[in-house]
Amino acid sequence: MIDHLAILAPGLLGASVAKAARARNAARHITLWARRPETRANLRAQSWVDAVAETPDDAVREADLVVLAAPVEKIIELAALISPALKPGAIVTDVGSVKTRVCRECSAAMPAHALFIGSHPMAGSAKTGWENATDDLFIGRTAFVTQPSANITAGALALGMKIASVCDFWSDLGANPVIVTPEQHDEIVAHISHLPQTLATTLAAFLGAKNSDWREFAGNGLRDTTRIAASDANMWIEIFQQNRAEILRALESYETELATVRAAFAAGDWPLLRARLEAGKKFRDSL
Amino acid sequence: MIDHLAILAPGLLGASVAKAARARNAARHITLWARRPETRANLRAQSWVDAVAETPDDAVREADLVVLAAPVEKIIELAALISPALKPGAIVTDVGSVKTRVCRECSAAMPAHALFIGSHPMAGSAKTGWENATDDLFIGRTAFVTQPSANITAGALALGMKIASVCDFWSDLGANPVIVTPEQHDEIVAHISHLPQTLATTLAAFLGAKNSDWREFAGNGLRDTTRIAASDANMWIEIFQQNRAEILRALESYETELATVRAAFAAGDWPLLRARLEAGKKFRDSL
Repeated sequence: MIDHLAILAPGLLGASVAKAARARNAARHITLWARRPETRANLRAQSWVDAVAETPDDAVREADLVVLAAPVEKIIELAALISPALKPGAIVTDVGSVKTRVCRECSAAMPAHALFIGSHPMAGSAKTGWENATDDLFIGRTAFVTQPSANITAGALALGMKIASVCDFWSDLGANPVIVTPEQHDEIVAHISHLPQTLATTLAAFLGAKNSDWREFAGNGLRDTTRIAASDANMWIEIFQQNRAEILRALESYETELATVRAAFAAGDWPLLRARLEAGKKFRDSL
Repeated sequence: MIDHLAILAPGLLGASVAKAARARNAARHITLWARRPETRANLRAQSWVDAVAETPDDAVREADLVVLAAPVEKIIELAALISPALKPGAIVTDVGSVKTRVCRECSAAMPAHALFIGSHPMAGSAKTGWENATDDLFIGRTAFVTQPSANITAGALALGMKIASVCDFWSDLGANPVIVTPEQHDEIVAHISHLPQTLATTLAAFLGAKNSDWREFAGNGLRDTTRIAASDANMWIEIFQQNRAEILRALESYETELATVRAAFAAGDWPLLRARLEAGKKFRDSL
């Protein structure tokens, strides 16, 4: 259990961390800070909040664990802003979808007596905003926790215990923590999240441009395959920018695969297409 | 209302046609025929069946509307088999996913006094077999009805009325009928059904080959995007073979689009990617 938890800039994810921590008894005291005064006023009225601070510094001063729940660019700004106010032994984490740059810049912003350990809970909703937060958002979901990839020899054991405490926190919220380096994380999510998004967006944009009347005939297959194309463009542009190199690599590999499949259609190579259908079914059935 | 409906080789779709026709009073008399004697015996015990014939000929002899519910290759065989037994004015339709070849070959197999008008209800389920049929499978779904593309001048009005009666039948089952030529149908489904299937299969097979451990981290986005990859490989190989030319064309156009998107990642062309995200969202939101 965390003694004092601070969550800055709570949206859907950050407020769900607070609600889940309260519901599941994962933190004794929960302090929030939000950028807009109206949001701070509204949050003060919530039963799952103990205190709402007027400034980021005040929010984190007593905190053992700080969760930066802002979009990626703001995470880095906030880390620098709160750094002087962190108490010795404090751990700072986040909930951002991309990790390499965030971990590098936030780690650099930390004082010697505090540590940044990135997190990425694989949870979300079509709805956004703290008003839509739920205390069960993380149940059964993967929560990536990043192992600093820097060369750490002195204090390796202490570091291991800090990482373990972040993992324990996500476990307490119902998630399944998985420790990876920031680089591994970004390669994984490029393939299992950002590539599917790119393909779904490209398919939906392609069909819309091709003949938008066809939307009338859409079956469940098309609905499922393009569901994530309805996601927020602002959020995705930021993810695309942050993870550009890994997405590009994943996209190039997928294009090579798709060209193989297209060549099989051209050549009538049904054994190859059958093998792909069976391999795809095997993978999907295993999810 | 159809006076006498015959359904040959009922699987999920064919038996759902029977159940829906019974539940919604779309046919007075329903006769079925199934290839396997055990299936015929089981069907005889069903309340939504009036009679189960021992042979395809016997099943269709009195029928005003015959529904061939077999896989595509078998549809063509069955059409030739029942042709001599059809009564004057009989209409034969089907529920196959691809139409150009089926319509051409089945039309050629008909006697002068009967007519083949293809159908493709855009409905289905992960489950197969007549045991999983439901009477609400077609509600709100598109049912394509194909207009013979052959040069028909004499009897155009009579043909129009026959097409209208097939449309009425699907309406009675709760579907939304849409009249297209077989060629238009195959172009449309290549884009809205067979292309999404190919992309989902390729993505699932690609990720399975890349690193199958990553399946542990799958979120809802990947689950949705690859859901149809779990479909039956035998069914899809047949669809791929039947609609090969149109799928190839759709796939080539999609590949061009995807290459544009990949080039935008390489060049950091965020306005292009934002435009695609917004166009994709617009299309998906409209489904």
